[in-house]
Amino acid sequence: MTMDHQIQPKDSMRVPEPTLRRLPWYLSNVKLLKQKGERYVSSTQISRETNIDASQIAKDLSYVDISGRTRVGYEVDTLITVLEQFLGFTDIHKAFLFGVGSLGGALLQDSGLKHFGLEIVAAFDVNPALVGTSLNGIPIFHSDDFVQKMHEYDVHIGVLTVPIEIAQCITDTMISGGIKAVWNFTPFRIRVPENIVVQNTSLYAHLAVMFNRLNFNEFK
Amino acid sequence: MTMDHQIQPKDSMRVPEPTLRRLPWYLSNVKLLKQKGERYVSSTQISRETNIDASQIAKDLSYVDISGRTRVGYEVDTLITVLEQFLGFTDIHKAFLFGVGSLGGALLQDSGLKHFGLEIVAAFDVNPALVGTSLNGIPIFHSDDFVQKMHEYDVHIGVLTVPIEIAQCITDTMISGGIKAVWNFTPFRIRVPENIVVQNTSLYAHLAVMFNRLNFNEFK
Repeated sequence: MTMDHQIQPKDSMRVPEPTLRRLPWYLSNVKLLKQKGERYVSSTQISRETNIDASQIAKDLSYVDISGRTRVGYEVDTLITVLEQFLGFTDIHKAFLFGVGSLGGALLQDSGLKHFGLEIVAAFDVNPALVGTSLNGIPIFHSDDFVQKMHEYDVHIGVLTVPIEIAQCITDTMISGGIKAVWNFTPFRIRVPENIVVQNTSLYAHLAVMFNRLNFNEFK
Repeated sequence: MTMDHQIQPKDSMRVPEPTLRRLPWYLSNVKLLKQKGERYVSSTQISRETNIDASQIAKDLSYVDISGRTRVGYEVDTLITVLEQFLGFTDIHKAFLFGVGSLGGALLQDSGLKHFGLEIVAAFDVNPALVGTSLNGIPIFHSDDFVQKMHEYDVHIGVLTVPIEIAQCITDTMISGGIKAVWNFTPFRIRVPENIVVQNTSLYAHLAVMFNRLNFNEFK
C-alpha cells in the first residue's frame, strides 16, 4: 500500500528558502504524529499543529513531489521518508570545520548534526595547543595542511567559526581549495563567487533580535 | 569631539527583523575598520565591504539614532558603542538552558555567547547521570527544580534544546514559570502566547537549505 512518489526535486525548480526552512517543521510534526500511532496526516492537521496556513503547507509540499489522497491525506511513513530524503538528511555530507575556538569546539561536540546529514570529519586551527589533538574523535590539523587534507577526504562543505578578522581570508582559502558550500557562523558577511553556497547562521544576530523584542515587550 | 547620539531605541518604533539581523554585520565590519586604524566610516564604505546597498545601510542605521557627518561619515568608536548597546550585547541577559543533550551540552561550552550578552546560568535535565553535575562551570539541575530556581536567579530567557517530543510541554512549563523569551533550537515549531518572544534557530533547517543549494549547483 505504498503511494506513488518521487524523491528527486523537480527539474530546474529552485525551492524557495522559506519553504526549505518550513519543511523541517512539518517533518518533526509528522514524526510526532507517527509516535502517536497516526498513519495518515492532512495539511489541515499539520496546519493546526504548526499555526501555518494549510494552503501554504500544501504549496510547500508540492515541491516535494508527494501526493496526498483525498480525504485521508498523506501517508505518514512515506511523508517522513520523502521529506528526510528531500531535505538531504539521509545522505552523509562530509565537512571540515575552520577555527576550533569556543563555538567551533562546541560544534565539534554536537554529534546530533550527523542525524541531519552533516558529518564534520576534521577541523583546522593554528593554535599549537590544539593541532595534533582531537575533539569528540575528530582530528584537528594545522590550517596549513588544509589543501593536502582536501585530497584525502571527500569534502565539499566548510564550517566557518574563526574570528572575524580572518573570516574572509579563510573563506577565500577554503574556496580555492575546492570547498563548494560555506556554513558561516561568524557575524561577518563573507563574499564568495556566485557558484558557492553560503548559509549564514549568526547566533549573535538571533540574540540581537531576541533582546530587542524582549525589551520592546517590556516597555510597550 | 564626541557626536550627539542616543542609545535608546526610538519610542514605539519596532525595528524590523531583517534590520536587526543586518546590524551585527555592520558592527563586525566597523570593528575590523577600527583595527585597521580608521576613525570614520561612511555607509558607502560599509556597503563596499558587505555588498549591501548603501541606502539600505543608511536606513538600517536610522533606527539606531546615530547621526553621521556629511563627508566624513560616522565616527567609528561611537558607532561601535552605539551598535553594541542597541543590539543588547553590552548588557548581560541571564538564561536557563533546557535539555543537556548533544546540542545543549555544546551550547553550555560556548563561552563566546557571553561576549554578546547571553549568560547561561543554569541548565535543566532529567538524566540522573547529569543532574547535580556541572558543565563549563554551569550547574545542571533536575527539571522539577525549575520553578524554585526561577526564584533564586533573575532569568527571563530560556534556551530550548530538548527532544521534539517534549519541546511544547517544556515550553509551556517555562512560560508558566515566568520565562519571557524562548530561544528555540529544536526543529519543532513551538506555540506561545502573544506576549512571549520566540527566536527560532534551527541548525537543521539551515542544513536543509545548504544541502539543497549545493545539490542544485551540482546538477544545474
